[in-house]
Amino acid sequence: MNRRDDISGNIPGMMQEIGTRARAAAAELAFAPSEVRAQALEAAAAALERRAQEILAANARDMAAGREKGLSAAMLDRLMLDDERLQGIAGSLRAIAGQDDPVGRIMAEWKRPSGLHIRRVRTPLGVVGVIYESRPNVTADAGALCLKAGNAVILRGGSESFHSSGAIHAALLDGLRAANLPEDAIQRVPTRDRAAVAEMLRMSDHIDVIVPRGGKGLVGLVQREARVPVFAHLEGIVHVYLDAAASPEKALRVVLNAKTRRPGICGAAECLLIHEGIADSIGQGVIRALIDAGVEVRADKALRQLVPEAAAAGPDDWGREYLDMIIAARQVPDIDAAIAHIRRYGSDHTDAIITEDDAAAERFFARLDSAILMRNVSTQFADGGEFGMGAEIGIATGKMHARGPVGAEQLTSFKYVVTGEGTTRP
Amino acid sequence: MNRRDDISGNIPGMMQEIGTRARAAAAELAFAPSEVRAQALEAAAAALERRAQEILAANARDMAAGREKGLSAAMLDRLMLDDERLQGIAGSLRAIAGQDDPVGRIMAEWKRPSGLHIRRVRTPLGVVGVIYESRPNVTADAGALCLKAGNAVILRGGSESFHSSGAIHAALLDGLRAANLPEDAIQRVPTRDRAAVAEMLRMSDHIDVIVPRGGKGLVGLVQREARVPVFAHLEGIVHVYLDAAASPEKALRVVLNAKTRRPGICGAAECLLIHEGIADSIGQGVIRALIDAGVEVRADKALRQLVPEAAAAGPDDWGREYLDMIIAARQVPDIDAAIAHIRRYGSDHTDAIITEDDAAAERFFARLDSAILMRNVSTQFADGGEFGMGAEIGIATGKMHARGPVGAEQLTSFKYVVTGEGTTRP
Repeated sequence: MNRRDDISGNIPGMMQEIGTRARAAAAELAFAPSEVRAQALEAAAAALERRAQEILAANARDMAAGREKGLSAAMLDRLMLDDERLQGIAGSLRAIAGQDDPVGRIMAEWKRPSGLHIRRVRTPLGVVGVIYESRPNVTADAGALCLKAGNAVILRGGSESFHSSGAIHAALLDGLRAANLPEDAIQRVPTRDRAAVAEMLRMSDHIDVIVPRGGKGLVGLVQREARVPVFAHLEGIVHVYLDAAASPEKALRVVLNAKTRRPGICGAAECLLIHEGIADSIGQGVIRALIDAGVEVRADKALRQLVPEAAAAGPDDWGREYLDMIIAARQVPDIDAAIAHIRRYGSDHTDAIITEDDAAAERFFARLDSAILMRNVSTQFADGGEFGMGAEIGIATGKMHARGPVGAEQLTSFKYVVTGEGTTRP
Repeated sequence: MNRRDDISGNIPGMMQEIGTRARAAAAELAFAPSEVRAQALEAAAAALERRAQEILAANARDMAAGREKGLSAAMLDRLMLDDERLQGIAGSLRAIAGQDDPVGRIMAEWKRPSGLHIRRVRTPLGVVGVIYESRPNVTADAGALCLKAGNAVILRGGSESFHSSGAIHAALLDGLRAANLPEDAIQRVPTRDRAAVAEMLRMSDHIDVIVPRGGKGLVGLVQREARVPVFAHLEGIVHVYLDAAASPEKALRVVLNAKTRRPGICGAAECLLIHEGIADSIGQGVIRALIDAGVEVRADKALRQLVPEAAAAGPDDWGREYLDMIIAARQVPDIDAAIAHIRRYGSDHTDAIITEDDAAAERFFARLDSAILMRNVSTQFADGGEFGMGAEIGIATGKMHARGPVGAEQLTSFKYVVTGEGTTRP
């Protein structure tokens, strides 16, 4: 277990040291064989199980402190670990160990008339900084995913989960040692002092990318202040557009799932746009079904004339992420109005069209540039696991480098390897 | 022709307006068909030929001002346009028009057991800002490459080429009009005021990436100050390592070409590392050949004992980019010392090994992370054209998004397009 505890004092100096060690570890990891990295993850899963009592005891300390601090029931639930959740974390480490290794993969290969043989090869990105809130499992998931991609990682967890994260981190270190990899490959910031976060955001020499995991407050802070590139989404203001050519059955099924399956995730639908041609038929059916399912529907005037039980939407309801059993609903005259609404109020995360009309779907796909665009699919599928990428460290809405679900592959870079036979350029 | 001339006054306001128009143009370009963008480039090439006299007259104004300002002969040469160079620019526009179009290409496509069909599709990046120095041809090359990738571009050329760039820009606008594309797709900052550059570097809402084209002063400024991602390399501190198992003939041929073909380009070799086992044989032969070819070789003590005619290297000669007929030379005890030297002094641009030993080449490739690593190849091949990418806008050494030669494909992003049949998530 990491015996360093809450350290204060020279935060910038401490963070520089952590950064320097991460950089050195990254240089070693860059050529550590795939099976050695996988072995470290397997060993970490075993250590997690072996250390279960220790981790649960550390978690009990965090839970007691959390209750004392008056954390909400939802926050306490996020923080809580039990045997089942620990098993889940260990299982997730093993799943990441078993995934395809992106590092060293040849992305493209070609020959040139000059005689050059060119390969583009995946390499680790370098050092990843992960800043997260109360869920202690992120310590394991993020640490493992970064290691999978050959990166060193600096983990900065929330203060509520300080002891839990420390105990889980100790198991990850066991795994690194078992595989003879540098312990500095997965470092944890050993202080709750928030100055450490501010420092991380400026460490562009030591950190290649920052991944914030948490609420809008944390992500917004990181996006505003970071001088290091960030993979994140600020909000998931997810739209579902019911086109004139929507199938009634698919519309009903998809919208209900997209809103109610888990209303608190970033892929949950937050706004329903309904073509006026089907508002009176499919539209009102879907709205009534949502209300029956316990969703508060905040509708515009046109839709409230059809479904008077709906609440009235105000101007604040467009572009709003409820993360709750609430949805905004608006009637639009045509697909272009739906596209214009999404461009104006969307967050480039995930947006869907329900239609049987190929031309409408093509128009929607071509004219919107959300990271994920869907047709006749529940937006709750916006997830790396569901995409088949294995675990994800988050979903990104930026246009650079990683977009959509960020898995191990998205945590890599590449280099060109060029061979010849003494080839010179004329 | 763009009739706006040197504007001063409210630079931030003007730049915001340019940025807003670029964003609007980018939204239209995102779904402009491939052939329309190619047509615009063909029409621009024709307009460039049609406007040749006008462009040469504008260039004559710049040249006269340059002479008056006392620009060096080299700078005047970079600035100068004549019929042949104009033909070259037109040819390059046509070559870019003829390249494969990256936009809309399906990068990957797969199905999931859930029924989802997922495609990853290339999209334009959005708005590119290009900041360059005296070469007026960059106006055409950079404008064309951005358009090829479906991006809007904001061009900010050097003040020396102000009129030449304006005249070339006018031809690009002709091309856009001929293809019915928005003129705001290729905008030129209509002022020499340097405040416009400072503004561009902060316009992260309006510009997705900045590409600086020019010397170390410009690139360093952009890298330091930009709040927008940057594709660039600061220096090309290119190393060639002659391994113990180097072929004498390849060593001689590649090193001479890597240094002397064009010593002023970023892929020119700047430092020669020689394994001690072959210093007395291949090493001294290569050094003597360099000296005979007119290169100043600045060697360490060990190598000067073998070749006393070599100059003495000082500590400043390691990690130095001469861009001239000068090369540093150092003897190393083994390949790991060569790798350590490159890690310490290199610039992650291009580094090469000369060896017949596959294991040595593999070690070199695995343990270094330069954007381009070569074996038995002249480093002068570090170029998008030579890589088969068509024109390039520059070479990047960052790890994020684009690395190595940056061509049209590297100026794109992607999105996921997901289709189903009313698919819901359990």
